[in-house]
Amino acid sequence: MSDAGGTTGVRLTDAERLDWLRLIRSENIGPRTFRMLIDHCGSAREALQALPDLARRGGADRPGRIFTIEEAQRELDAARRHGVVYIASSEPDYPVRLRMIDDPPPLIAVRGRLDVLAQPMIAIVGSRNASGAGAKFAGVIAHGLSQAGLVIVSGLARGIDAAAHRASLQSGTVAVLAGGHGQIYPPEHAALVEDLLHHGAAVTEMPFGWEPRAHDFPRRNRLISGLSVGVVIVEAARRSGSLITARMALEQGREVFAVPGSPLDPRAEGTNGLLKQGATLVTEAADVLTVLKPILGRTIEPVLKEPDTGAVQEPEEPSSDERNRIIGLLGPTPVDINDLIRLSGARPAVVRTILLELEIAGRLVRQRGGLVALL
Amino acid sequence: MSDAGGTTGVRLTDAERLDWLRLIRSENIGPRTFRMLIDHCGSAREALQALPDLARRGGADRPGRIFTIEEAQRELDAARRHGVVYIASSEPDYPVRLRMIDDPPPLIAVRGRLDVLAQPMIAIVGSRNASGAGAKFAGVIAHGLSQAGLVIVSGLARGIDAAAHRASLQSGTVAVLAGGHGQIYPPEHAALVEDLLHHGAAVTEMPFGWEPRAHDFPRRNRLISGLSVGVVIVEAARRSGSLITARMALEQGREVFAVPGSPLDPRAEGTNGLLKQGATLVTEAADVLTVLKPILGRTIEPVLKEPDTGAVQEPEEPSSDERNRIIGLLGPTPVDINDLIRLSGARPAVVRTILLELEIAGRLVRQRGGLVALL
Repeated sequence: MSDAGGTTGVRLTDAERLDWLRLIRSENIGPRTFRMLIDHCGSAREALQALPDLARRGGADRPGRIFTIEEAQRELDAARRHGVVYIASSEPDYPVRLRMIDDPPPLIAVRGRLDVLAQPMIAIVGSRNASGAGAKFAGVIAHGLSQAGLVIVSGLARGIDAAAHRASLQSGTVAVLAGGHGQIYPPEHAALVEDLLHHGAAVTEMPFGWEPRAHDFPRRNRLISGLSVGVVIVEAARRSGSLITARMALEQGREVFAVPGSPLDPRAEGTNGLLKQGATLVTEAADVLTVLKPILGRTIEPVLKEPDTGAVQEPEEPSSDERNRIIGLLGPTPVDINDLIRLSGARPAVVRTILLELEIAGRLVRQRGGLVALL
Repeated sequence: MSDAGGTTGVRLTDAERLDWLRLIRSENIGPRTFRMLIDHCGSAREALQALPDLARRGGADRPGRIFTIEEAQRELDAARRHGVVYIASSEPDYPVRLRMIDDPPPLIAVRGRLDVLAQPMIAIVGSRNASGAGAKFAGVIAHGLSQAGLVIVSGLARGIDAAAHRASLQSGTVAVLAGGHGQIYPPEHAALVEDLLHHGAAVTEMPFGWEPRAHDFPRRNRLISGLSVGVVIVEAARRSGSLITARMALEQGREVFAVPGSPLDPRAEGTNGLLKQGATLVTEAADVLTVLKPILGRTIEPVLKEPDTGAVQEPEEPSSDERNRIIGLLGPTPVDINDLIRLSGARPAVVRTILLELEIAGRLVRQRGGLVALL
């Protein structure tokens, strides 16, 4: 099986890759800001040059720290020594479905086999403190879905995640890391990573030596669902991380599957809750395959942007009057960007430029649903 | 809580009740034939008088055995000594929802409190060899639904059924028996029946001393669902009796609820299967109550027939030509009654009369979906 549309895109030069890494590692730059900067400036190199000026115009007390050429080269060298390859979202090896999410990482660091990333993937996730039955079922379903030609994606956690990876070592499994390749978490799964690299891959957007912190896990979960056609939640307590993955999947338009459990089992509270909300009930691999079949048959539209080539729109220069008006409309309470455009009377491109400047200056946060607020 | 529409109907005289009992206990007469005979003849007494003639015209080798006055009186006397009351489907105490099913028993034999039959009921059924967790959950949900004013209906079986009854002894529970009141099955639940009579009732359509046989249980299950607004299936293996109750409930237009369980638990195979087919997932009483609320608010149309009063249509007398034509169209392969009417060119009333005669002669079987076949 292979995902259609997976071989489009243009490879970056080494110099461009270095620029991309510098830009995404610079202060106040996330995946969304990265994309907007490329759109605004035309290339990563031009964005890096424009950053100090944009930050100043956004009213930064001090310019945000820019990742240096030396730092970027050091990261790329360390990664290369460990067999880690960096793939940009504009390149053909970048997973097509991940490219379709709202905030795809501009660069992913991949160890293992790149070809598995071109195959259709299904995520299997669940509780760290899984029951024996839950871990066993995760293995059974992972094996069944593997046999049908799907690559199993999971988060390398204890419990369900590890069981899903272990059951699909031979057919291909992808571990998405919350930290860097140099900081496998949990440490006891370092051997599991080595095992899965033979037929699979480990993927992260984080710097090579990054030690994952609590808020890196939900961020990582968007990649688990983003890589996948759908997500199977095997066991999940109420308010568990797996439910975040399920929510991400819904937001990304991916299928959500849940495994039922006894109402008296707290590890089934989350999955039963998902079922009540309309997730597809799974007791065997066929339940997943029935839903996926028409989806996998569909051609994926290449929504690829190739920002470094072609004409770039001349950015609209905001007047200081417009800038003041828009900043005046902002505050700590999140406001909808569309309302901001309407209330300010400014052209959308102008509003977007001002917001970008504020963001780069570290004065603005973006929230879900197109909301922005001043820090 | 009380079901609207529950106090319509006319009480039978003792003599009429005796006639009804004789007719339903006579050979080749089931609930459907009973109703058709009343429609055809006008009353149970007239139907009893017409039976030999109808059987002869239907081509019976020998007339079907008619339950004698003495036998009927003996059954009523034995029942009365045990506090059993017979309620006819035309009487006000007959449960309104049971009256709405396709084949309501013309008479139900009730021990205990008649007033609980006027309250809205919910069935809770499941495996005989229930797990500890399943039995516990049945008790929890039965208690929760009782507290909301619902009467708990079940089948007095070991396992889930018994747990549901026991948890609702104080608030009212109805046991539907597959045999007669004089033959409680399983025998060790005789004490449970005595306990539940204080605030609830035991109900059956079978003769007082009837020992239940295998095929009486599915037949009984239609009463469990027929009495109820909905059915909650707690644990059910594949191809279990509880799934028959679920199917009956669907056919009767009642709600089906199922409790999820682990895919590795064979006792959850049936319930998970129901959930895949669209049953409502239940992990707490509120899940049931949310669905039932609008249904319980609705007024039930009294679809009551009062066959012993009012004008009776003069039955159409079939010609011998018509009779031969229709019998010629029948065979061991089931055929749709509508096709029979179309192919024979006879008037519907004539076709129905001939089929009734054949049925009373013991030569015809009716199947689901309006199909008939010669024996």
